[in-house]
This record gives sequence, structure tokens and C-alpha cells, in this order.
Amino acid sequence: MSDFFKTKSQFYLPKGIIYLDGNSLGPLPKKTQDRIQHTINNEWGEMLVTGWNKARWMDQPNEVGDRIAKLIGATSKTVTVGDTLSIKVFQALASATNYQKNRKVLLTDSSNFPSDIYAAQGLVNMLQDDHQVKIVSTDDLIDNINENVAAVFFTEVDYKTGRRYDAKKIIKAAKQNGSLVILDLAHSAGAIDTNLTELEVDLAVGCTYKYLNGGPGSPAFIYVNPNLINSLDPCLSGWLGHENPFDFSLKYHPASGIDRMRVGTPPVIAIAALEASLDIWETVNINDVRKTSIQLTDQFIKGVEQKCPMLQLITPRLPENRGSQVSFSFEHGYAAMQACIELGVIGDFRAPDVMRFGFTPLFIDSQDVERAIETLAEIMSKDLWNDPKFQKRNKVT
Amino acid sequence: MSDFFKTKSQFYLPKGIIYLDGNSLGPLPKKTQDRIQHTINNEWGEMLVTGWNKARWMDQPNEVGDRIAKLIGATSKTVTVGDTLSIKVFQALASATNYQKNRKVLLTDSSNFPSDIYAAQGLVNMLQDDHQVKIVSTDDLIDNINENVAAVFFTEVDYKTGRRYDAKKIIKAAKQNGSLVILDLAHSAGAIDTNLTELEVDLAVGCTYKYLNGGPGSPAFIYVNPNLINSLDPCLSGWLGHENPFDFSLKYHPASGIDRMRVGTPPVIAIAALEASLDIWETVNINDVRKTSIQLTDQFIKGVEQKCPMLQLITPRLPENRGSQVSFSFEHGYAAMQACIELGVIGDFRAPDVMRFGFTPLFIDSQDVERAIETLAEIMSKDLWNDPKFQKRNKVT
Repeated sequence: MSDFFKTKSQFYLPKGIIYLDGNSLGPLPKKTQDRIQHTINNEWGEMLVTGWNKARWMDQPNEVGDRIAKLIGATSKTVTVGDTLSIKVFQALASATNYQKNRKVLLTDSSNFPSDIYAAQGLVNMLQDDHQVKIVSTDDLIDNINENVAAVFFTEVDYKTGRRYDAKKIIKAAKQNGSLVILDLAHSAGAIDTNLTELEVDLAVGCTYKYLNGGPGSPAFIYVNPNLINSLDPCLSGWLGHENPFDFSLKYHPASGIDRMRVGTPPVIAIAALEASLDIWETVNINDVRKTSIQLTDQFIKGVEQKCPMLQLITPRLPENRGSQVSFSFEHGYAAMQACIELGVIGDFRAPDVMRFGFTPLFIDSQDVERAIETLAEIMSKDLWNDPKFQKRNKVT
Repeated sequence: MSDFFKTKSQFYLPKGIIYLDGNSLGPLPKKTQDRIQHTINNEWGEMLVTGWNKARWMDQPNEVGDRIAKLIGATSKTVTVGDTLSIKVFQALASATNYQKNRKVLLTDSSNFPSDIYAAQGLVNMLQDDHQVKIVSTDDLIDNINENVAAVFFTEVDYKTGRRYDAKKIIKAAKQNGSLVILDLAHSAGAIDTNLTELEVDLAVGCTYKYLNGGPGSPAFIYVNPNLINSLDPCLSGWLGHENPFDFSLKYHPASGIDRMRVGTPPVIAIAALEASLDIWETVNINDVRKTSIQLTDQFIKGVEQKCPMLQLITPRLPENRGSQVSFSFEHGYAAMQACIELGVIGDFRAPDVMRFGFTPLFIDSQDVERAIETLAEIMSKDLWNDPKFQKRNKVT
């Protein structure tokens, strides 16, 4: 694990805080400020509009896409950065639907992140025909893949339980039925060893503000299998996806390759922040990160189960079946998480009763995990959430 | 005009540069860096995930929307910020099309910004039915509005010529035919005195990186008429447009009001940059800006026509018929613009032969205009673009 102590010092972490919420919003890399300052003063300030070429702003979405590609087992020129994850989910779904002319079902599971499902519902409302979104339980996904399914879309790691899906198996079933697969990597990129090339997945999307530490609301990314990309209509067709944006022609002609998935003007300052965090990622190997993450989550599960018997593990016990988070259900979960936060261990809560803890080896080590376990044990042994003073302080009723 | 000297000092402008390209990318406000530094260090760094509430990140898109609303004659709670202009154009078109069930034509003009037209083409491709994008000449727009037109969409100020459309007249014709109107304010917001409430327009969209100085790739905004919003399907439906995002329900229920046009997680750092520039806008009145802009553009037109007879004005001479830019056509326009830039007067070029100059009274005054005229006169009188040394330096052939 010693490899990661070097990266830990590259993040700013408030004193006394054990931050187990990097799966929601990653912490600030220390170099982000300098990087953004450079973009603002030396690029925007000095170059003004010429920055689009001189500072390579126009190329950055693909350059940053290439850097993310390395973390998700994708080859160069298959990933581009921009928009938000909700928009990229929509684009992936729309493109897949458009490609699959005679298939009417968009299939997903009820554990998918709701915004992904909303994107599909919005698309189906727009189409106003017999397209439909079908939502089944996670374990029923494969059985519901058939020749009516245009696309199966799911999040590789369940945001609530941390369960890792068997993407390989789902993709195999989809291929057998001619359905496309759209993988949401929100809780995979920078967290686990997803290999898109080996998976032979059709499309994938993800965000960069969780494990990739790009900052609040940093841009999303989209991957398209190079065998598919040039047959795909980007649907959200904007000038930067045009084969010749500055010809200003009146007819949209998609660029060749992943460029066509670009839409509007790229968010230069936000991309600069993301670059600063990817500099840290360049120094580690995602397989090492994954190994360490398994050690840390194992340690946490064991410690908490031993010391807090009232907490019910809802994350799979088998490392290969989980991502980089651990979740427990607990009747007083909301109040107990408030108590955790008050004592400096930041996780988060998901209704109705889930306490969620993310483990990010780039800045969390086994001592942190130990302290988190002890803090949780203290809260549980003292029923701290029942203490009226605590309740008043935290507005818990 | 003296009012604006105060704001001029609030922008960073490289020494010796007359920047007449604020209609492409506005210059850097001096306070932007501090504002972003605060967001990064004091908010993201210290508050981590709690910044969504503590630092009001979640509320910012609407708060900033309200500040933009004042500059475009809109009332509070009718504007929200996010995504890119191309995405917001798509969302407006999709929502309008969805609302107009039995109308199949999306009508625009051939002078509209191409990306807006691409968005419509992408939408029609997705729908795969008898919807169509109809492109006519600007002067034929009104005559082509009929009961088949779902929506008319156009950019209020032509990006190439600077011509200001008669939005009132187009909107009147649309209302008579039951067509919705979508107004692109890319070259209006912060440039002219558009009043959306008086216009009774249905939807409007715009960007913030031109006259509003939000920085390269800063987020877009969308306005929806309050009488229409609650009948409109947002189409790009994401969790932040949901009436209860943190209920994580599996069915999308649009929030009431402009909130429903929000989609994914807001770009916090980019919004911080925009806030810094809107602080400057709080100190001026858009009607004064417009008055000064007309004086500056008048001065430029007169001076250039007098001293550079080979340049052909393509911007309307009548102030009420133009935005805040002046364009000339010239056979050697590309090379002549390169010469301008080399001499410190930055405008830009649009194919095939348009030299474009933007006037932004917040940091351009009449002395700047005078110098720009003299520079252009020098280039023209010496045929500077024909000088082989210049051509070599600027790679002009």
C-alpha cells in the first residue's frame, strides 16, 4: 500500500477528517488551483480568443478522453469529455435507439441510478411511438434481454449497495440477442479495474467528480466501441461534432470517430481542473488501486461487523462482486451518519436506511480505515444518535 | 460614456491590445481568479461534499439565472444556467416539438448559427417520422410560418452580419399561427436591450462566454415563458430537473417551474467564474450599455467607410437593425484580419470574406475605436496583406 502514500500528500484534506465520500465528490488535488490559475491568467487572460488554438482548448476534450481511456481499459481515440453524465446517458441511449431501428425496448434495472432512467423516459416521451423503458430487478436483467431490446443500460457498480454487476455476462447475453449495451461507469472509473476493450461493450459513460477528483460538476465522458462509432448517429449533434465545424455549413455531417460525440463548446476551466487530477492518476496503476481498495474494504467490513453488530452489511462480501464502497443498512442510519460526520468521519446516507462509505486508496490508508471503524464503534456503543444534545445540534428528530 | 470607464478597469486586457472580439470570447474580469480560488479552496477543499448545501452549489444555477434574467428583460425564476448552448437549443426544440403534437415543421433561416440547425437536424433524425427542418432565407421567415410549424427558431442577432432581426414581428406572426418561438440570444445577452417579457417569446437560450464574460466554454442559459413552463416536457430529463431529486424515485416527475429545465449536476467551478463577471454587470444598466454600443458602432462605421473605401459594410446602417458588432466584407478579408491582429486590433474572420468586429462598452471606449479605425486604415492604405514578409509571418498564402 505504500505506493499510495505519495499520492495522499497530493490532496488537500481538512485536518482531522477521514473522507469516505470520494465516491460522491472526490477531494481537491493540491495542484488544481495552480492549474486553473494558469488557464485563467496565462491562457484566457493573455491569449483571449486565440486560446482555442494556442492553448489547445479545442483539443483538450479528446486529449483528456485519452487519459481517462487508460483508466478504463479503452484504447486511444475512443473517449471524449464534455457535458454532464445525464446528457451523455441521453446521447448514448438516443444513438443506440436510432441505430436499432426495429427494436422498441430500452431495458434497465431498478437499481440503476435514477437519472439514467429519467434520461430514457425523456427519450421515450420524445419519440412518441411504441418505444418503452422496461425496468426489472437486477437479477432479472439477463432473462429480459431479447430481440425487442434495443439497448440494455446499467451502472456497473450499484450506487447504493456497492454491488458490482457481472458486466461480462450481461454483455454476452446482449450480443446473443443483438442488443447494444450502455455501461455507466460513474462508480467504476478510478475505482475498479473495468476493461472496456476486453468487455467488448458498445458504449460507456461516466462522470469525473467522484473517484477521478475533477471537482464539483466536472464534465462527463463517453466511450464508443471503435467498431461501432462510425455507424452511430450522435443524435445530440452540435458544431464540435461536425466534420468541419468552421465551415459553418448548414447541414450536419458527423466527424469521423469519437469526435462526433462532441456537442457544444467545451468547458475549458472545468477541464483544466480535471487535468490537474489526472496528473496524479498518471502516477498509479489502476490494478494496484483496485488491489488496495479490496484490502481497505475488507478491513472495513471485518472491523465494522466485529464491533457494530447492529449494522447490516448490504455490500457483497466477495471482493469481485463489489466496487470500492461499503454500505450498511441501519434503522437509524441517517442520524448515525450525522454523528459520524460530527466526529470527522464523512460518509453519506441514501434513503431509506443506507450508510455508505467510499474507499479511495489514492488518499485513504489502513490507519484511516481503522479510525473510521473505531469512530463508528463509539457511536454505536453509545447510541449517540439518541443523545438529545446531539439531536439538537444536528437537527435530527 | 464615462460610466463605463469604471468597468473597463475591472477587466484584464493585454497591454496594447484593442479587443474587438468580445462577441466571440469576452475578456477576463480581474476578480474571476479570486472568486474561483475561493470556490476551490474554501468551498470544495474545506467543505467537500457538504458544499452542495453549505456553499449553495445546488441553488447557483437558478440564482445566476435570476441575475441573467435582469439583462434580458425576464422576470425572476424564468431562467436557469447549465449545459452548453447547443444542448439548450436541442432541449428547447425537443420540448417545443413535444408540445406541438400535430405540427411537423421546425422552421429556421439560413443565417442562423449552424450548430442551432444541427441540433434540429439531430432531433428530426431521432424522431424518424415526418418531422422536418425547413431552412429559408431570413426575409422569408415570416411568410413560411403556418399551421404546420411547431416552432420557429432563430438567432436574434446574425453572428456574421450583425443584423438584428425584428423579433417582435416574427413572434407576432408565430402567435397568429400557433407556432412557438425559440430565440437564441448568443449575440443579444449583454449586447442589446432584448426584453423577453415585452416580446412574449416562448423560449430563449443563450451563452455566457461572449458579452457576459463567463470564460471559455462557460455554461449556457435557458428561459421559458412562465405561462408555458408547466405544460412543457423538458425532454432532457435529469435528476436535477426532478421535483424531488433526492427521493431517487424510478419515475421522472418534472419539478414545477424553470427547475425542470435543469438536467445533470451543475458545473460549480464554471458557474463561479460566471458569478465574478455578473458582479460587474450588476453595476451597469443594459439600456446604457446599448446606447453606448450604438455610439461606438456608429463611430466605427463612419470612420472605416471614410478611410477604407474598399471595405463593404454588410451590417445594417440603422442602429435599431443591428446588434453590437460591425462586419465588412472584403476579398482579402482573412489576410487583412491577420494583419489587424498583428497590429494589436483583434477582431475575427468568418468565411468566405467577412471581417467581424464586436463592440462591448464595458471595456471598449471611443479612443479604442479611433485607434482601431486608424489601424485598419493603415493596413488598407499599404495593402499590408500583400507584403510577402507579412504573409510569411502569418502563414497567409
